Amino acid sequence: MDYAARQKRLAVQLHNAGVDALFLTHLANVRYLCGFSGSAGILVLRLVRASVSAIFYTDGRYKQQAAEEVHGAKVVITKKPAFETACEAVLRAGVQHMGFEAANLPYDNYRQMVRALRGKTKLKPVSGAVEQLRAIKDASEIEQMRAAALVGCSLFQTACTAIAPGVPESVVAGELELQARRAGAEKMSFDTIVAAGSRSALPHGRASAAPIPADGFVILDYGVILAGYCSDMTRTVHVGKVSPERRRMYEAVKAAQMASIQAVRPGAAVGDVDQAGRQLLKKAGYAAYFTHSTGHGVGIEIHEQPRVARGQNQKLAPGMVVTIEPGIYLPEEGGVRIEDMVLVTESANEVLTPTTRELIEL
Amino acid sequence: MDYAARQKRLAVQLHNAGVDALFLTHLANVRYLCGFSGSAGILVLRLVRASVSAIFYTDGRYKQQAAEEVHGAKVVITKKPAFETACEAVLRAGVQHMGFEAANLPYDNYRQMVRALRGKTKLKPVSGAVEQLRAIKDASEIEQMRAAALVGCSLFQTACTAIAPGVPESVVAGELELQARRAGAEKMSFDTIVAAGSRSALPHGRASAAPIPADGFVILDYGVILAGYCSDMTRTVHVGKVSPERRRMYEAVKAAQMASIQAVRPGAAVGDVDQAGRQLLKKAGYAAYFTHSTGHGVGIEIHEQPRVARGQNQKLAPGMVVTIEPGIYLPEEGGVRIEDMVLVTESANEVLTPTTRELIEL
Repeated sequence: MDYAARQKRLAVQLHNAGVDALFLTHLANVRYLCGFSGSAGILVLRLVRASVSAIFYTDGRYKQQAAEEVHGAKVVITKKPAFETACEAVLRAGVQHMGFEAANLPYDNYRQMVRALRGKTKLKPVSGAVEQLRAIKDASEIEQMRAAALVGCSLFQTACTAIAPGVPESVVAGELELQARRAGAEKMSFDTIVAAGSRSALPHGRASAAPIPADGFVILDYGVILAGYCSDMTRTVHVGKVSPERRRMYEAVKAAQMASIQAVRPGAAVGDVDQAGRQLLKKAGYAAYFTHSTGHGVGIEIHEQPRVARGQNQKLAPGMVVTIEPGIYLPEEGGVRIEDMVLVTESANEVLTPTTRELIEL
Repeated sequence: MDYAARQKRLAVQLHNAGVDALFLTHLANVRYLCGFSGSAGILVLRLVRASVSAIFYTDGRYKQQAAEEVHGAKVVITKKPAFETACEAVLRAGVQHMGFEAANLPYDNYRQMVRALRGKTKLKPVSGAVEQLRAIKDASEIEQMRAAALVGCSLFQTACTAIAPGVPESVVAGELELQARRAGAEKMSFDTIVAAGSRSALPHGRASAAPIPADGFVILDYGVILAGYCSDMTRTVHVGKVSPERRRMYEAVKAAQMASIQAVRPGAAVGDVDQAGRQLLKKAGYAAYFTHSTGHGVGIEIHEQPRVARGQNQKLAPGMVVTIEPGIYLPEEGGVRIEDMVLVTESANEVLTPTTRELIEL
């Protein structure tokens, strides 16, 4: 990972925002800019003439980890809380205008920062600057995400084998997660969704103790974290023989998903990607049952920029990785969702999750 | 769960803090006060003469869940974001002084609240009020925590069976987590720690892909969430025959842990509970290798009040549930930690995690 290059790109944005430093507290951003993957630390970036100086502050618990992981930043191990030490250093350095991550920093910490800086450093809320950079993955990130996506795909067979009438949803999730560990995943990227029968009509039906019914859809929505990067995919299978109505529902989601994927290319507006699939569901009479947006960016966090949602104008660019995940949810009856991770390439797109979309009856 | 009683107890604190309303955004506190377990919602409590009025705001995604779960509060399903609607309602109700959860509320949301209230409602940072109530568990909570602790205990045998030289730590974690699912756990209460060989010297050695060595300690630190309440326990086993030095180390931790548990009783200062074990480790020559505090409260969140740490004066009270978890960490060589959940009773204490503390050689 080329942390120095990322910091330089950020420096341009900070310059434009009128600040000469950025106080980073959001750990996903800290990781992106210097590699630290632990759970406590502060990164302070300063613009010094034409270059960037980066200092990472953490406490003794993370001494060894910081030494191994942090690149492109000087590491300072603090005795006091890292936040306090970092503020003192900012004051000493005579920073004039400093940005902070207002979307994440709790009010109490903001007040603490104001007190520590004694009015000598002007504070400016800066949100989304790093997130905007993170939306465009570089070559090494794409490689990691490809690997994470493939591990995700490899788990689908395990889940299919575990699914049977009477088995609790949570046991299917547990079998899938054990297999993820065997495949080298650090952890799951979010709470695994296994939603069977009428529960498949819940768009966020986290695996429960409910047994899988003998007849109905099962939505599997899960992801792994591999070397810090998230995967995310969804498949829907059917337990028992599928009725013609349910098959029609499934095929409508599949067609919508493929239409949205086809719309993914550099320069396309995310709203148009959403619309490409949504209009097919509308034509098929399911418009009212597709109750969420089409997708989201994914990377170090499971939800990143850009949102792929109705009416949004943001343009796709090469290096973005988004999910495309339309669904239909019929209350009481059940639901279908199909989701892939899609990389925006120079010319069009590439699906990172090569798992069949044919309806599987178990 | 008696949500009305909890809200009444909180009302006394709000009155003392000089506010006539509290805007709750921290979801663990929201759950404690009205039962909602979803991931988006706002609870506004108002003092109206001698009583409390509670309104819970959430969006359409959580309509069914809110209807099923929320008690002791009126439910409002919002079209706009719940935060916005809740602010508007506060303004309309003419609230004079409102507390907000300053330790959690991001600065951006604070600013949004200030704008929405147009200077008509005075805002006051109120942190820790609900957390202080939550530290004392009521009878129904103790029942839940007892059940969660027992599920935790039931997993130890599964982990012991999975441990063998060459098996990745993460696979042991996966087997344990699958068994947790089978036992009805909603999820794990934190990232499972399986730290073997020299990695056992890391106090927070989350299960990695590293294989378990043929000779050394393995620290297992894990917990489940059952009906919203967390369990937390640690056992250390040894792969291969343990050397006399390592046995001495293990017995020192065991003696320290039992001494701290014995010190747990109503009225005891948490600092003294810490000291009871710490001084034994000091006498045994391990003082420098016990690098963290003795424990923490546990409940809806894995880390709650009170902290059981050196020099703290807070007094234990009946209904508190704390972990007691001293450890010794010898860099390169390995570590030992033993942790139980301990309930403060009217007369003394009760260990909620009845799993053997004898050293097991595998």
